[in-house]
Amino acid sequence: MKTAIFGASGYTGQELIRILTGHPEAELVAVTSRRFASQPVTEVFPSLCGLTALKYQNATPADIAAACDIVFLALPHGISMEMAPIFISAGKKVIDLSADYRLRDVATYEKWYVQHTSAGILKDAVYGIPELYRQKIKDASLIANPGCYPTSIILGLAPALKNKLLAVDTIIADSASGVSGAGREPQTGSLFCEVDGGFKAYKVGKHRHTPEIEQELSALAGETFAISFTPHLLPVKRGILSTIYANLRKDITMPELHSLYSSFYAEEKFVRICPAGSFPNISSVCGSNFCDIGLAVDPRTKRVIIISAIDNLVKGAAGQAVQNMNILCNFKEDAGLQTAPIYP
Amino acid sequence: MKTAIFGASGYTGQELIRILTGHPEAELVAVTSRRFASQPVTEVFPSLCGLTALKYQNATPADIAAACDIVFLALPHGISMEMAPIFISAGKKVIDLSADYRLRDVATYEKWYVQHTSAGILKDAVYGIPELYRQKIKDASLIANPGCYPTSIILGLAPALKNKLLAVDTIIADSASGVSGAGREPQTGSLFCEVDGGFKAYKVGKHRHTPEIEQELSALAGETFAISFTPHLLPVKRGILSTIYANLRKDITMPELHSLYSSFYAEEKFVRICPAGSFPNISSVCGSNFCDIGLAVDPRTKRVIIISAIDNLVKGAAGQAVQNMNILCNFKEDAGLQTAPIYP
Amino acid sequence: MKTAIFGASGYTGQELIRILTGHPEAELVAVTSRRFASQPVTEVFPSLCGLTALKYQNATPADIAAACDIVFLALPHGISMEMAPIFISAGKKVIDLSADYRLRDVATYEKWYVQHTSAGILKDAVYGIPELYRQKIKDASLIANPGCYPTSIILGLAPALKNKLLAVDTIIADSASGVSGAGREPQTGSLFCEVDGGFKAYKVGKHRHTPEIEQELSALAGETFAISFTPHLLPVKRGILSTIYANLRKDITMPELHSLYSSFYAEEKFVRICPAGSFPNISSVCGSNFCDIGLAVDPRTKRVIIISAIDNLVKGAAGQAVQNMNILCNFKEDAGLQTAPIYP
Amino acid sequence: MKTAIFGASGYTGQELIRILTGHPEAELVAVTSRRFASQPVTEVFPSLCGLTALKYQNATPADIAAACDIVFLALPHGISMEMAPIFISAGKKVIDLSADYRLRDVATYEKWYVQHTSAGILKDAVYGIPELYRQKIKDASLIANPGCYPTSIILGLAPALKNKLLAVDTIIADSASGVSGAGREPQTGSLFCEVDGGFKAYKVGKHRHTPEIEQELSALAGETFAISFTPHLLPVKRGILSTIYANLRKDITMPELHSLYSSFYAEEKFVRICPAGSFPNISSVCGSNFCDIGLAVDPRTKRVIIISAIDNLVKGAAGQAVQNMNILCNFKEDAGLQTAPIYP
Repeated sequence: MKTAIFGASGYTGQELIRILTGHPEAELVAVTSRRFASQPVTEVFPSLCGLTALKYQNATPADIAAACDIVFLALPHGISMEMAPIFISAGKKVIDLSADYRLRDVATYEKWYVQHTSAGILKDAVYGIPELYRQKIKDASLIANPGCYPTSIILGLAPALKNKLLAVDTIIADSASGVSGAGREPQTGSLFCEVDGGFKAYKVGKHRHTPEIEQELSALAGETFAISFTPHLLPVKRGILSTIYANLRKDITMPELHSLYSSFYAEEKFVRICPAGSFPNISSVCGSNFCDIGLAVDPRTKRVIIISAIDNLVKGAAGQAVQNMNILCNFKEDAGLQTAPIYP
Repeated sequence: MKTAIFGASGYTGQELIRILTGHPEAELVAVTSRRFASQPVTEVFPSLCGLTALKYQNATPADIAAACDIVFLALPHGISMEMAPIFISAGKKVIDLSADYRLRDVATYEKWYVQHTSAGILKDAVYGIPELYRQKIKDASLIANPGCYPTSIILGLAPALKNKLLAVDTIIADSASGVSGAGREPQTGSLFCEVDGGFKAYKVGKHRHTPEIEQELSALAGETFAISFTPHLLPVKRGILSTIYANLRKDITMPELHSLYSSFYAEEKFVRICPAGSFPNISSVCGSNFCDIGLAVDPRTKRVIIISAIDNLVKGAAGQAVQNMNILCNFKEDAGLQTAPIYP
Repeated sequence: MKTAIFGASGYTGQELIRILTGHPEAELVAVTSRRFASQPVTEVFPSLCGLTALKYQNATPADIAAACDIVFLALPHGISMEMAPIFISAGKKVIDLSADYRLRDVATYEKWYVQHTSAGILKDAVYGIPELYRQKIKDASLIANPGCYPTSIILGLAPALKNKLLAVDTIIADSASGVSGAGREPQTGSLFCEVDGGFKAYKVGKHRHTPEIEQELSALAGETFAISFTPHLLPVKRGILSTIYANLRKDITMPELHSLYSSFYAEEKFVRICPAGSFPNISSVCGSNFCDIGLAVDPRTKRVIIISAIDNLVKGAAGQAVQNMNILCNFKEDAGLQTAPIYP
Repeated sequence: MKTAIFGASGYTGQELIRILTGHPEAELVAVTSRRFASQPVTEVFPSLCGLTALKYQNATPADIAAACDIVFLALPHGISMEMAPIFISAGKKVIDLSADYRLRDVATYEKWYVQHTSAGILKDAVYGIPELYRQKIKDASLIANPGCYPTSIILGLAPALKNKLLAVDTIIADSASGVSGAGREPQTGSLFCEVDGGFKAYKVGKHRHTPEIEQELSALAGETFAISFTPHLLPVKRGILSTIYANLRKDITMPELHSLYSSFYAEEKFVRICPAGSFPNISSVCGSNFCDIGLAVDPRTKRVIIISAIDNLVKGAAGQAVQNMNILCNFKEDAGLQTAPIYP
């Protein structure tokens, strides 16, 4: 299976290269970057020395489409939807890591992002959380790989929402992300001196992942609602932790809740439910495709507190993209994704 | 004014030494530590070389009481209440940094901590948040210096609660603290390798600061209620950020809310309200006694989001203790506390 | 091939478990720990959830010898030499990660460590740097896995010393290590608050790795000499960088030096020579078994500067131990060690 | 005394503002920045809220000269020498934090930097290390504030060189700096994800501070020589540690060396000699103007190892600049510089 990455000079692109060079079935044949055109990948990312001999190409989508069976688009939103149709027309499978095909409603997309110029193929896109949409992914031509924050929150709430446990208008998701989520473009806010020793909320009430989260949570619950979502910037490189609060609609004990979550994800290799009383730490999933989930029932306030942790570059981006590719191509779902978390 | 610190070998003790050696009115005459008895302070804390010539003493409370006018107790809970009565009996002022005199209700204290052995003087204790209890502090003999998390949450909510803006049973405080809050005793969970690159919640629904927060918030609101409080451990040395959510009881615009907070704290030197649209960062208060507060009104969910930041060792502990001493002794309230935040 | 780890509760033990659970040929059948006896490994290291079902045993060496073909000793020095003879007598292969069998001269060992109680099998021990002793390792019964600092310095200097390029009495190795090198035992000096934001030298002129480094460098040079070695503590979890200085005995250009190093390590999968003008970064080897080496010739001072980087827990400990096992067992030398560095 | 800062938008500029707003004698009347023209300083640096009401001006040197008695130039090299003559002509004192007036030899400057366009006033410049040039600083009109690396190395070597203890051609300075030394301009190499968890050497044998270090060391020794200087990038915000090696020209014991250093700096408030056997940590000087120095004599190699630590933004830049101003203006030398190190 020949794969290519369009826009492979950022952290997500690098992570895709890292995973694909160790994949037993996929062959990475091309990576593109305007900025680094004709430079070896290893000059930009010395960590990959000895693992790949590829050079960055400044190639057209048509060139890349001719060379591969499946393409990963690791591009900014707005650019992906210019490229994806070209690959689709050429009969290639597309896994898009931008936001361009995640929102099923064009008007919502346009409210939070920009004008949508590819509505034609939007209806064919499948939202790529394997744990929820595995069957649809198998047959998809275009996969909208989920956002990092949404992945952590949706996986954290799915069992509870499917089981109608929550008063949906009380849901609050308080999340914190490592800095790699901001990409590799130099900007003041991502400088070491601005981030280290710090912690802050940003885009309070205004983050673009909000509609994506609400779309999927509403689908799970079978009703439409709004949530509070507050992202924070953590002084770490990788990882997202979401602490999610909701009032219980009905009484449930901690053992019942734990059992319900364990059953829901029993067959899922990449979701781990923490033992009762234990809570996840982003450092326990670092470098891996795991999503760890911890649970608490607070009888004092009749709330559940659900905490989920992922590596934003793996389960929150490149790893989930490869998991989607594996499903699409009928590979073992964990092919190339068996790396244990790096700890400490 | 002669001061002493009983139990000065931890991070809070060190911070008190740091502040008091630069204080224009107070003279630090004695510091105690069993573990480091007769060692110079600077052997334990080389950063203080050239700033103090004190040695740690393994002294009795009576010895220390004889040497000072005012004592800071930087001891574990349970131990403070053994010491405080001795100082009080000797006619000395006590600023206790433990939890022993913070909860006005003995039963509540005993539910969350241990048996209370000093109920006799508990009723005389004043809860030491100057912004709320300045008048009482002036005349106090025993000040219960607030916990670090409570300080950040209480200052963040005070204006809104006093003005009856919030549906009190919807309040959720999601907080994150630097590691110095865990003290200097060696323990696995505070090791660099366990903390760096990580982020996790702990004591979910069970943290001992909960009753202290609820006591003060209930007093502000004039009604009794429970909150959700979730502490997290941040990979930073200093700082607490609390992100607080509550449903609005009545409509209020962001400019109105901002104006209400600005007025409430207009005369307070150590509380800074961020400009609308800006939110605090713990690195902007590091090393200082400031509490920074940012505000948002979310019309989508009819919630307010209030974010407050302090340095847990300063406004959350030693700095606030010195601020209380300044009030008690009729010094300028910011004497010794004028250090600008260290940034970056 | 059945393997066991004696003393598997520290960071090196954990790293061995991580690598061995992903190894295609080795089966990890037992891990021991007195402190965590009968606890599942995943309770101590949640990152390993789903990857191993082993529980820690408080077992005797004889018990473990009966269960495995090869054992890793991840024990403090002094303890290893009590255990190793038992395994050797039982006909099992031993890979010892302590210092007990690294120094060929008993008197030197006793000068820097403690009395040696296992001199009988010391002469059979092979110093386990595969790049230098591969043939001997193949037939060894007891492998002394090298120290982390020594690995970085020996690999950095081997080509230059073998080629008699250096004035050996001018060699200075200035090294810096991540905190995991200090182990997982709680101690003040390894606390997050003591390490983060800091950088210091320690054991200046007195570090126990000095004789091990000198033994191997002298063997490479064919003459005996002393070096200056200064370790520093870095605020990172993993990684060692050694910056090595030496005066040139004869003129050599940078291209010649680069070519000499590239040839020396041409067949070595785990040593990567940086392009001329580039220098290694510990973050580019994190989580991998690579040793990266950068080179400079300074015509102003007639010195070479050689910089090498490893992950102290992998090439500096567990990874090199598994590499040694692979050679010993005739597996592919990189079996289980193909993980790409985790970057960023 | 009216002061101004020309180019106050970077970390050094911020640090000057921080120190000067707390200075008892100096009044900061103007700060310039093209990029942030007419923005309040506190919008760029929220940590300074409540401490200054200044706005950035896009002003000419002539405008600023008219408003102040003394100016700090916190500008890139090459730009400073365009501005300084204007202030000097207007009769104002100049403290230049760039490299433009540090090298007394124009040819050397031009070899390592750019063409020198202000040779006319170069001869009047005094190199601003108070511990070495205090008398000259008193009467200077133009002070060349030293580089950060040079400050740490020169203070570390001065007593030994003045006393002819060292074989000067064996001096090696291995230094490591926090990221703030790279400034606040966004660049890939200073991003959190590039720096955190990493450690690397850079500009090996080629750093521009080399001639400045050699000029001052040669002056101290009374002979001309070259050194090896290797800078490294540390994953911390502030701090420089220099580990310096040199062969002893004559025998000296550790107590003698310690005594010699203690005497040399006996009257210096900002230099602290560590007790024998102790070595400095950058975290023990963080936020302060101290330079800590630790010493070792290694009888095995006949070398001394001298380790010095400073905060690169304080003693390595803004603090030393203010110390120079204090001397120039006949203020107490530690006015505004009494902040204790922030630890932990």
